[in-house]
Amino acid sequence: MPNPTAAMLVIGDEILSGRTRDSNMHFLARKLSEAGIDLAEVRVVPDDRSRISEAAGALSDSYDYVFTSGGIGPTHDDITADSIAFAFGKSIGVRKDALDILEKHCAKMGVDLNDSRLRMARIPEGASLIENSVSAAPGFSLGNVHVMAGVPKIFEDMAVRVIAGLEGGRPLRSRSVEIFRPEGEIAEDLGKIAEDFPALAIGSYPRRVNGRFAVNVVFRGEVPSVVDSAAERFLAKFPDATVAD
Amino acid sequence: MPNPTAAMLVIGDEILSGRTRDSNMHFLARKLSEAGIDLAEVRVVPDDRSRISEAAGALSDSYDYVFTSGGIGPTHDDITADSIAFAFGKSIGVRKDALDILEKHCAKMGVDLNDSRLRMARIPEGASLIENSVSAAPGFSLGNVHVMAGVPKIFEDMAVRVIAGLEGGRPLRSRSVEIFRPEGEIAEDLGKIAEDFPALAIGSYPRRVNGRFAVNVVFRGEVPSVVDSAAERFLAKFPDATVAD
Repeated sequence: MPNPTAAMLVIGDEILSGRTRDSNMHFLARKLSEAGIDLAEVRVVPDDRSRISEAAGALSDSYDYVFTSGGIGPTHDDITADSIAFAFGKSIGVRKDALDILEKHCAKMGVDLNDSRLRMARIPEGASLIENSVSAAPGFSLGNVHVMAGVPKIFEDMAVRVIAGLEGGRPLRSRSVEIFRPEGEIAEDLGKIAEDFPALAIGSYPRRVNGRFAVNVVFRGEVPSVVDSAAERFLAKFPDATVAD
Repeated sequence: MPNPTAAMLVIGDEILSGRTRDSNMHFLARKLSEAGIDLAEVRVVPDDRSRISEAAGALSDSYDYVFTSGGIGPTHDDITADSIAFAFGKSIGVRKDALDILEKHCAKMGVDLNDSRLRMARIPEGASLIENSVSAAPGFSLGNVHVMAGVPKIFEDMAVRVIAGLEGGRPLRSRSVEIFRPEGEIAEDLGKIAEDFPALAIGSYPRRVNGRFAVNVVFRGEVPSVVDSAAERFLAKFPDATVAD
C-alpha cells in the first residue's frame, strides 16, 4: 500500500512580503518523513478569505491530510478559522470547549478574556480541537484539514500532537553519498542507476565546498535493501565517493 | 494602477522530504517587494513532470510573472525545462545559444562537454536565456515564466537579473511598531485602525522575548502618508509602543 499523502497550506502576508522567513514547512516536512507520510505539495497564500478557502478545498480533495499554519490569533488579520469553515460549508461560532481552554489560560495569566481573545474560541461545527502546551488558542481538525498556529513553537507543538494521532506509512529509507566532482561527471552513470531502480527517488544535489565541486546523491525508497543496493552500485562505480549519512 | 503580481514555483523532492531547507522563497519575496511586485502565491511540488507542468500552467494564467526554482542541471532528476516546454506546448532541444555558453564554460573549466552536460543546453523554442555568473547552465524565460536554478547562489544571481528587466510597481511603504503586551490587549483597537485604513495591509505578529509577550505590528501600503498616519494612530493609542524600523 502506498504511503499516505499530505499537503501544507502556509497562510501569511508576512511570508510573501519577505518580512518573515517561514520555518514551519521544513519542520513539518521532516516530521512527516519520519512518520512515513509523503508531503506532496506546499502552498503559501496571503491573509485573504477566498484564497485560503479555495486552496484548502483543493488540497483537501487531492491529498489524505492537509496541514495549515497561521492566522488563528485574536487580531483582525486572523481569518483562517472562518475561511476554513466557509470552505467546507460549516457554521462557526464561539464553542464551549474552546472557551473553557481560553478561560483557564486567561485566569492563569491574569488577563481579561476580552472580545478579541474570544475570537480564538471561534471553531467550526464538527471540528475537534488541537490543544498546545504553549498558548491559549487551540487549533482544530475539520475532516482531513488540521488548522494550526503560525508561531513556530506553537505550530511545532501542535504538529507533533496531530501527527501522533494519524495513520502513517513506512518511513522511507534514505542513503546519502558525497562525491567531490562536478555533477556533469556523474550524471550519465547516475541516470543508468536511476533507470535500473525505478522504485527509488534518486536526487542529485550539487554544491560548492571551498571552491571545489561537490554533489550529494540521495537514494530514497520504501524497501531498505533496494535503497542500499542502489547506493552500493554508485559507490562501486565511483570509488572516490563516500557515505554521507 | 495596482502593482504587478507574481507567483513562485519551487521544484524539489529535497524540500518536500525535509532534507533541504528552502531559502530561495525568502530571497525572491524580498527582492520582489523592493521592486513593487506583489508575490501572491508560492507552490512547492516534487520532481514530477505532470505536477510541474500543471502548476506552471495554472500560475502562469493567474499572475503577471512566474518564477521557478530547481531542476535545470545535468542529472536524470532535472526535468524542469522539459516540463515547462510541455506545459506551454513548445518543442525542446539543444539550442545553439545555450550550447555556446556551455562550450565556453567547459573549455574554461577544462571539463568535457559530455551528453549529460548537453542536457543543460535543452531550451524550449521561443524562450530567451537567463545567464548567470556562477555556473554554466542558463535558465530561460518563456512567456511570463522565468525558469531558474535551485542552488541558492545561482538562483539569486538569476533572480536579480530577471527582476531588473521587469516592469515593477511602487514598492510598498512599510512601518513597524513593537509593543510589549499580549496580542489580545491590542487586538480591538488595532482592528478599528484596520477598518479605518482599508487600503493598508496591517499585520500583527506575536512573539515571546525573554518570557515577555511582544507584538510587532506592520503597516503596509502604497501611499507613504497613509501608512504613516495609521502607524501614528497606533502609537498615539499605545504610548508604550515604539517604532521598530
